[in-house]
Amino acid sequence: MIRVLVWNEFYHEKAEEAIKAIYPDGLHKTIADFLSADEEIEVRTATLDDENCGISREILDNTDVLIWWGHMRHKLVPDEVASLVKEAVLDGMGAIFLHSAHHSKPFKALLGTSCNLTWRESEDREVLWVIEPSHPITKDIDRFFTLDHEETYGEPFTIPTPDKLLLIGNFSGGEVFRSGCLYERGNGKIFYFQPGHEAFPTFKVPEVQSIIRNAVHFVAPTYRQNITCPHVRTINDKDGYVIEK
Amino acid sequence: MIRVLVWNEFYHEKAEEAIKAIYPDGLHKTIADFLSADEEIEVRTATLDDENCGISREILDNTDVLIWWGHMRHKLVPDEVASLVKEAVLDGMGAIFLHSAHHSKPFKALLGTSCNLTWRESEDREVLWVIEPSHPITKDIDRFFTLDHEETYGEPFTIPTPDKLLLIGNFSGGEVFRSGCLYERGNGKIFYFQPGHEAFPTFKVPEVQSIIRNAVHFVAPTYRQNITCPHVRTINDKDGYVIEK
Amino acid sequence: MIRVLVWNEFYHEKAEEAIKAIYPDGLHKTIADFLSADEEIEVRTATLDDENCGISREILDNTDVLIWWGHMRHKLVPDEVASLVKEAVLDGMGAIFLHSAHHSKPFKALLGTSCNLTWRESEDREVLWVIEPSHPITKDIDRFFTLDHEETYGEPFTIPTPDKLLLIGNFSGGEVFRSGCLYERGNGKIFYFQPGHEAFPTFKVPEVQSIIRNAVHFVAPTYRQNITCPHVRTINDKDGYVIEK
Amino acid sequence: MIRVLVWNEFYHEKAEEAIKAIYPDGLHKTIADFLSADEEIEVRTATLDDENCGISREILDNTDVLIWWGHMRHKLVPDEVASLVKEAVLDGMGAIFLHSAHHSKPFKALLGTSCNLTWRESEDREVLWVIEPSHPITKDIDRFFTLDHEETYGEPFTIPTPDKLLLIGNFSGGEVFRSGCLYERGNGKIFYFQPGHEAFPTFKVPEVQSIIRNAVHFVAPTYRQNITCPHVRTINDKDGYVIEK
Repeated sequence: MIRVLVWNEFYHEKAEEAIKAIYPDGLHKTIADFLSADEEIEVRTATLDDENCGISREILDNTDVLIWWGHMRHKLVPDEVASLVKEAVLDGMGAIFLHSAHHSKPFKALLGTSCNLTWRESEDREVLWVIEPSHPITKDIDRFFTLDHEETYGEPFTIPTPDKLLLIGNFSGGEVFRSGCLYERGNGKIFYFQPGHEAFPTFKVPEVQSIIRNAVHFVAPTYRQNITCPHVRTINDKDGYVIEK
Repeated sequence: MIRVLVWNEFYHEKAEEAIKAIYPDGLHKTIADFLSADEEIEVRTATLDDENCGISREILDNTDVLIWWGHMRHKLVPDEVASLVKEAVLDGMGAIFLHSAHHSKPFKALLGTSCNLTWRESEDREVLWVIEPSHPITKDIDRFFTLDHEETYGEPFTIPTPDKLLLIGNFSGGEVFRSGCLYERGNGKIFYFQPGHEAFPTFKVPEVQSIIRNAVHFVAPTYRQNITCPHVRTINDKDGYVIEK
Repeated sequence: MIRVLVWNEFYHEKAEEAIKAIYPDGLHKTIADFLSADEEIEVRTATLDDENCGISREILDNTDVLIWWGHMRHKLVPDEVASLVKEAVLDGMGAIFLHSAHHSKPFKALLGTSCNLTWRESEDREVLWVIEPSHPITKDIDRFFTLDHEETYGEPFTIPTPDKLLLIGNFSGGEVFRSGCLYERGNGKIFYFQPGHEAFPTFKVPEVQSIIRNAVHFVAPTYRQNITCPHVRTINDKDGYVIEK
Repeated sequence: MIRVLVWNEFYHEKAEEAIKAIYPDGLHKTIADFLSADEEIEVRTATLDDENCGISREILDNTDVLIWWGHMRHKLVPDEVASLVKEAVLDGMGAIFLHSAHHSKPFKALLGTSCNLTWRESEDREVLWVIEPSHPITKDIDRFFTLDHEETYGEPFTIPTPDKLLLIGNFSGGEVFRSGCLYERGNGKIFYFQPGHEAFPTFKVPEVQSIIRNAVHFVAPTYRQNITCPHVRTINDKDGYVIEK
């Protein structure tokens, strides 16, 4: 059983009627619902307004994959919470950052760059292309799929070169974007997935749901352990390696 | 002085009037001309119909950067010629493969994959985006530039993950393509650049010329040497490493 | 069930008494035996002296993971056999190349470089270190393990930068070597593993067996399909993509 | 002229007689001296005890390459100083982190991982091997060079996979270490180089000096600019891209 925690800023869906109409209970609820249909996945949710953002070391210790959506209120996430998430990923927890979470504190801390990009809200059509057809995350996705409307994200996207680039988006306004980026950091796997503007029903699109579901399976850890910085004796010493620090 | 050899299949420009009108002396001549305007570059050309394709070990030994364009007649390039090119690149010679050279023998031999892609001749407009603004190859290129018409190339492009992805193309028909891909193989640098369909005057576009010129400077070797497979003595041996094989 | 084919040159074990004493039925038999103990693995073997090297398209179509050991007789493997192996890997078949298979035809064709290295037969002790403790291939391996004697392989090892470097070896003579290298090429996964000199009982070492067994599971395909080079219509065309080439 | 700033914690050299004997004016002085012999390099130094650590935005704006050595007092570097360094690197400033700077705040912030490693002070001999003989940073270095004594650093070194691995160290105690690691982050280049324990005269070794000097040339920026996160109009808009954010 893969234990997923879907974290959402949950601000737009309460503040704006048009967005509330799309995701009445918050987009985290929509994501939780389609993931719950997978028998191997168990889902909880947390939001910015929960106590300590709904994040604690104990909660993360019991989370295999954290999904994160945030946008306008990244700064309200305490540094301490971002650190907990970062440490959990380095120990092995999987993480999926959606859309505007490119600017979330834990994503930026894990990648080390500004994660800036170019953007425009103009109802562009986006065609997402599969770059790696054999990758488990693009399983059952055809050569491409189309989103009638998405917020336009454009290059340069200031990220480290992805360990694996899985999807590239073509926007009708002329832009391109590295829309599916996979990283390994410490023991953890990180997937960034660009679709998911709050003003469109993107998380109801079957291919978007499949990719997130596939990603949950892919980034779920098979190994989770803190890698320390041990002082050691020689390997010939019969007592072997002794962690003194 | 960087010694460049521009190799062209030189078939379309002789066989088809419409293409001859664009490149009367062959597209290699157009490329050679704009490169020659760079005082640090010295250019020669060679074509398929030249003796031994205009390629020999001696010629390659005196070439710093080889530029290759081919399309319909890849199979007429002898395996031996492709091997000479491959060996020269592994020793340190720079190589730039243009457009349909994705299927040329030396490119496929150096990368090891099929280098297949999806394609369409439909006069799409292509917008090329700079992914790495600080890279020497994209020097002086704005965020993007546009080709009014190019042959459409689409993903999946079956190549190894590039060491550095520099450009991505957006086609008006909806496709995307990894249009500027950099590799290091052995001591050599390899740049693949997608624009350059023979039916359009792509090689006359200033940004295309700048990128090829920048690439010549970037892939030109600072070190060139065959890396052998030596049998060695121990490093403590006073005679040091002895190459016996 | 993962269908494994263990391919061995099977020359030393017949020609030299000392080696025959270690692997009386050939090292492929030793490898096949320990893999067969895994209930999810089904093993066959093939050798250079079999008809067509024991390789055909049909055999590879029914192979999930090919393990390859060769040394002195790489050149006796027909180019056509190497091509079949290469194509099968690009379609998705997993491949594990052991020790001196760094110079085998299919490995060199898949990687595109000379795959040269530095070497010495001096009974060095090798300590192999795990670089990525969370990777499935190093599962259950401690921080390091020791081989009392191995043929010394040294850098530079002329390979493309591995997609993932899993193990580095320390030789008592002073050398280092990238001993576990993972690549993705086309739809296939390729693992190179350095230990396995025929003159030492390396394939009887538990950690070596664990790593090969783990690698079989890791490189086994979840997707296998030839990626062609299709001519396509526009994505807006109601007939969609048509493969005409 | 490449403007280098050598930053040193400068603690051991004042606190311990044995270390003071090796580097009477601090190891930054030794580094500054050998770099100053290069006519294309201009060197300044800064230390932890300087006002604001000798770091300000203005100082960094006038620095092409920052070299950083720290060990026991990483925590005394203010977060604000680490942020300034990180931002400068992302804009294009080159950075070289030496030895125990693997745990410095700016290095960890740029890479995003713990950068933990295994270590031992036992006067091991280290042999450093060149993995990429054609790289400008290993220019004029033979296949390997030896340090009679170095602090032992061992794997796993918890870093992102380097964009390029240039050197691997072999320690006489049996360990290995990725001793020369190159990264590109934002517009900046980062080189991590492992040798440099304060208790040994490592920075007086010619090969160590050559590698640091070569690295200064290699990571010096050719382009330096902050990459923002602009709101843009469509590319067809005659007014082009407008940065509104």
